[in-house]
Amino acid sequence: MGKDTGEEKLVRKTKIPETTIARLSSYLRVLDELGRMGFDNTASYQLAEELDINDSQVRKDLSLFGQFGKPGMGYETTKLKREIQKILGLTRKWKVALIGVGNLGSALLAYKGFKRQGFYIVAVFDNDPKKIGKKWAGIVIHDITQLKPIIRKERTEIGIITVPAPAAQEVANLLTKAGIKAILNFAPARISVPKDVRLSNVDLSLKLENLSFFLSRRGR
Amino acid sequence: MGKDTGEEKLVRKTKIPETTIARLSSYLRVLDELGRMGFDNTASYQLAEELDINDSQVRKDLSLFGQFGKPGMGYETTKLKREIQKILGLTRKWKVALIGVGNLGSALLAYKGFKRQGFYIVAVFDNDPKKIGKKWAGIVIHDITQLKPIIRKERTEIGIITVPAPAAQEVANLLTKAGIKAILNFAPARISVPKDVRLSNVDLSLKLENLSFFLSRRGR
Repeated sequence: MGKDTGEEKLVRKTKIPETTIARLSSYLRVLDELGRMGFDNTASYQLAEELDINDSQVRKDLSLFGQFGKPGMGYETTKLKREIQKILGLTRKWKVALIGVGNLGSALLAYKGFKRQGFYIVAVFDNDPKKIGKKWAGIVIHDITQLKPIIRKERTEIGIITVPAPAAQEVANLLTKAGIKAILNFAPARISVPKDVRLSNVDLSLKLENLSFFLSRRGR
Repeated sequence: MGKDTGEEKLVRKTKIPETTIARLSSYLRVLDELGRMGFDNTASYQLAEELDINDSQVRKDLSLFGQFGKPGMGYETTKLKREIQKILGLTRKWKVALIGVGNLGSALLAYKGFKRQGFYIVAVFDNDPKKIGKKWAGIVIHDITQLKPIIRKERTEIGIITVPAPAAQEVANLLTKAGIKAILNFAPARISVPKDVRLSNVDLSLKLENLSFFLSRRGR
């Protein structure tokens, strides 16, 4: 591995850069489209082009996980897609809990993209008596006080936090106490989790800042 | 600049890697917190630690935009924060239009984080007669057929798409015809825009795939 990988965030226990994992997700989306367009074989430059990166980066990313293509022959589209799905843990179902059925929580519950990738929201919680017991997108909303027994019973592995910022840390504590090892946090709050728990924060402003950067430069 | 930057997506007209822009946003968040904690000076290793990267990467990122710190002295927290805000175009207000007041659109309208960074949603559109004319989070929902005149009148510069996937391309076309040069797309659809328009896609599944990657490896 080159010098640059040492400068990227390394994934705990794996030494795979975070940026590589994000690119694998992107390769998957391109392979999906190429497959639908009838490409049985895919060259690394086709993947590179779509992501606006160098094709040596594509080969380097994939080489971290094994030997997939034949030199000069490219990759079999379906086979490579399957291999990347395996690497990302997408060949199985994941049971997900969602906490906080406000607007954002409701939107994520109705979002069909999660299920397509194998993420099934099987347990939903809120602390609002008006919501508890009701159904949304086909799922019953449970009382937050029932989080631990329900998460254990359902064998939920991932937690999504969509509560208001001031409640986010408390919900994260409940999740980790219930045995959850992976949390996706949408609340605009910095939360901390034990070392053996993986936390991923979604910052909705980040992408807007990319646009304002571009617009600022453009005006010059 | 080193070899690695050539392998990253380059920002049109600027040659600044996308990953650098994303890191600038993260530095800003860390500086904000350090400032609140009373740190008048910030060392590059403090920024690096929070992002789990090498401190040489921090210095390299900042050097692309000028000379900010004094060698061996670190950076003045408030000053560096201000400089990064300038680079990202966050020292001014941006007028934003949002199209599609479903659950996700409603959640973004109510989200306070945007305003804090200078992004003001000033125009909102939908095609549902039951929503048109109503107010949400203090803003009137306009008929989508009025998009062009209202966006021009309000001098809106950024468009956020939160319509269902099948309608996303049509809305993007409307936005670009109205003169919008930066679009944030939340719809799970691949859309295309003219070359002089900056498009940023939010893929809500990406972060979950990072978690499933981690959980898969963890189990080994």
